[in-house]
Amino acid sequence: MTMAIDDMLGAYPADLGRVDRDRLTHCIEEATACAQACTACADACLSEADVSNLAKCIRTNLDCADICQTTARVLSRHTGYDANITRAQLLACAAACHACADECGRQSTTHEHCWVCAEACRRCERACEELINTLG
Amino acid sequence: MTMAIDDMLGAYPADLGRVDRDRLTHCIEEATACAQACTACADACLSEADVSNLAKCIRTNLDCADICQTTARVLSRHTGYDANITRAQLLACAAACHACADECGRQSTTHEHCWVCAEACRRCERACEELINTLG
Amino acid sequence: MTMAIDDMLGAYPADLGRVDRDRLTHCIEEATACAQACTACADACLSEADVSNLAKCIRTNLDCADICQTTARVLSRHTGYDANITRAQLLACAAACHACADECGRQSTTHEHCWVCAEACRRCERACEELINTLG
Amino acid sequence: MTMAIDDMLGAYPADLGRVDRDRLTHCIEEATACAQACTACADACLSEADVSNLAKCIRTNLDCADICQTTARVLSRHTGYDANITRAQLLACAAACHACADECGRQSTTHEHCWVCAEACRRCERACEELINTLG
Repeated sequence: MTMAIDDMLGAYPADLGRVDRDRLTHCIEEATACAQACTACADACLSEADVSNLAKCIRTNLDCADICQTTARVLSRHTGYDANITRAQLLACAAACHACADECGRQSTTHEHCWVCAEACRRCERACEELINTLG
Repeated sequence: MTMAIDDMLGAYPADLGRVDRDRLTHCIEEATACAQACTACADACLSEADVSNLAKCIRTNLDCADICQTTARVLSRHTGYDANITRAQLLACAAACHACADECGRQSTTHEHCWVCAEACRRCERACEELINTLG
Repeated sequence: MTMAIDDMLGAYPADLGRVDRDRLTHCIEEATACAQACTACADACLSEADVSNLAKCIRTNLDCADICQTTARVLSRHTGYDANITRAQLLACAAACHACADECGRQSTTHEHCWVCAEACRRCERACEELINTLG
Repeated sequence: MTMAIDDMLGAYPADLGRVDRDRLTHCIEEATACAQACTACADACLSEADVSNLAKCIRTNLDCADICQTTARVLSRHTGYDANITRAQLLACAAACHACADECGRQSTTHEHCWVCAEACRRCERACEELINTLG
């Protein structure tokens, strides 16, 4: 895999401030991975025979994909850092991941993609919470 | 202008729940308009002679554009509605708009695009707060 | 409606180049409106009783929403303009809108949201083609 | 790293069609990585002392980030596959990556983040071209 998150953080020309760099790298990774998993899971649900039972799961996947992607972008910027925006977006991301892990979790015994996606959501929720705890 | 937000809401095949439809329409409109204004303002700042003074303004514009766009998408979905996700994303949007209105406001006497953008941010922040107040 | 596309273009501090400003404004408007209509139509389809017949329509809506949104962003930037990127993204946008207008058009006698969305797609496809024709 | 692209493809409940699965996985990976690198590079450029020389580089980074992200999303969906949309979006992605690799390449002797980003752009451009060649 070719993500260069840590290389980019190492090449940032100014001070990263008080942020914990390892947790930041980890959270960008997990939010990026979760966005992709949720996008793919929504699509896999659409191809299931019981798609009518999966409408709420698809919707939650779509919200979670958008919110994780925006969170990864906000976390990838360090110039003019504003803890209020970062914290609020991380809280939204944790809420979306929590709800999506629950929805996908409910489908995970019958649909493997929901199992994979629920795991990605749980990892991202944890990474968001750990990063929130390090913010001032 | 050709946004069909209200037509789409009117054609939604299920119940919209307890949400205030006028405030919902208004908030989708303002978040969409604010995302565009922030994208354009970041770019206009990049073309200013004093771009080095505008780095924080550009960064806040980029965050606000991403967050407003994601908020408009979350608000455009009604199937399997989850008030926790919606509320958390609206709070993030209000925080981003507040910060961006402040940053752009500081530049608005010298840069007209910052004045236009700060107005869009303030309208969107207000629309988010009014919608949050109607959520259960 | 509160989109400030034309105000932002008027406040751009540098030369817009040879681009037709009216067509540019119109295309940003239509791409923004189409992205919102496609996001809402995908969700409305998810709430229909015959969702299993709408899987392809939903998928095309999701692609078209993402592509229109990215196109609106690319068109909202004028600094360091590159006609190759703009033209290629406009072609992708016209292709997505064409396909989505077809898919939604097929469902438009039974689903009003598909009718509204197909109209938005056709307007956006036309706006993309008109703008492509003015690029050098 | 925790991207689960291949696990999600393996769990897709229908036929993937004639697409080359390894090249598809690789292209989603590279487009996702490139989107993150471009977002981070735009921000790193904003923090450089010579930001006024980097305006075009930042703008190209922002376009490339949006286009790569949308491309990764389109490639993550398989239901109701439409080769016309996929091909057109891959062409736009290759064009954006080519331009961004050039812009960042010009800055790469003085700015390490531009070097890292140019490499990500070149890998993504190649992955897009290889995938285009396998489409019917």
